[in-house]
Amino acid sequence: MKRGKFIVVEGMEGAGKSSAITVIEAQLKQHNIDFINTREPGGTPLAEALRDMVKSAEHEERLTQETELLLMYASRSQLLENRILPALDQGLWVIGDRHDLSSRAYQGGGRAFDDQVIQAIADVTLKGFTPDLTIYLDIDPELGLSRAQARGALDRIEQEKFDFFTRVHEKYLELVRADSRIKTVDARQEMPAVHQDIRSIIGRYLEENT
Amino acid sequence: MKRGKFIVVEGMEGAGKSSAITVIEAQLKQHNIDFINTREPGGTPLAEALRDMVKSAEHEERLTQETELLLMYASRSQLLENRILPALDQGLWVIGDRHDLSSRAYQGGGRAFDDQVIQAIADVTLKGFTPDLTIYLDIDPELGLSRAQARGALDRIEQEKFDFFTRVHEKYLELVRADSRIKTVDARQEMPAVHQDIRSIIGRYLEENT
Repeated sequence: MKRGKFIVVEGMEGAGKSSAITVIEAQLKQHNIDFINTREPGGTPLAEALRDMVKSAEHEERLTQETELLLMYASRSQLLENRILPALDQGLWVIGDRHDLSSRAYQGGGRAFDDQVIQAIADVTLKGFTPDLTIYLDIDPELGLSRAQARGALDRIEQEKFDFFTRVHEKYLELVRADSRIKTVDARQEMPAVHQDIRSIIGRYLEENT
Repeated sequence: MKRGKFIVVEGMEGAGKSSAITVIEAQLKQHNIDFINTREPGGTPLAEALRDMVKSAEHEERLTQETELLLMYASRSQLLENRILPALDQGLWVIGDRHDLSSRAYQGGGRAFDDQVIQAIADVTLKGFTPDLTIYLDIDPELGLSRAQARGALDRIEQEKFDFFTRVHEKYLELVRADSRIKTVDARQEMPAVHQDIRSIIGRYLEENT
């Protein structure tokens, strides 16, 4: 059986990740490709419990930024070993709502952790595993945050100061430039144009890889 | 105000950490030293929730060893920043039931993680913070485990195979030899002799540091 592929959608709050995922799902279905969906942090019972800890201040008012970083990778370890890898081994594709790039951007850029620190933790957690294709939806923090606010209440991380999101955005751009397996879509465009770009990227990927 | 001291009791299952702590508490009270107690993993609301995750398989059957390592340090980060450091700053002493040495021994020795991996995570989490005094209760894994079993049901980690505890024990001995601030007590002795050794160590420490 042919191993599945791991496609990840990345980007900031309000970039349109959810509707991008819907577009990708429809396209995989057209090609009779079976897939599962994941989201990060989360995606397994333990990882979802860690997601709640990271997103809310329910257990404890002050979550250190070190704890945030470590819980993100603990969640990722559970998801990778207990869901993503078994699915890929069964020939299923996996559509991920965020993956490691988010930690690089949010904890590396936003929280200003050293790249080497994150790399050391990523190495031990992921053991070299990387997505087959990443679609990065690029949006200005101003526009993204205003869309996210229009959608409803913001979680603990979404409530960070504007500077935080500027650093996240800059880090995303830096990381995307350095990795040719990440395809950027301009999420400032009208939705039909964004979706057309996504369909083109997925279409090309399917041609080359199925 | 004079900063408090952090005294840690370390050792394997059944080494007698709890009764050692009782001895230390009595001695600090005699010297009118105010203290708080901590235990690891745990010791804050969030860290206790992480402790439950690590000790039981309640959320998810398979906890990866990477998750175990990361959750141990996330718990330690919360405890350090939200309880240990504030207490020391207020002049309180802290008596710790386990601290970083346990991760070095259990995850480094037992799980066989590279020392450098643990060091990288410890560096970012602890930022150079170390206990002022550590008392290591040395016991053979056979004897310790038989005592722990007599005490009641074993948790997820305590249910590991015997080899695991042999590796933990060897790692403890290696780490203890390398750090002069760790004082070893022979926990194979009868309890009165163990307690006398602990009282001597604490007595000497109090003479030199108060």
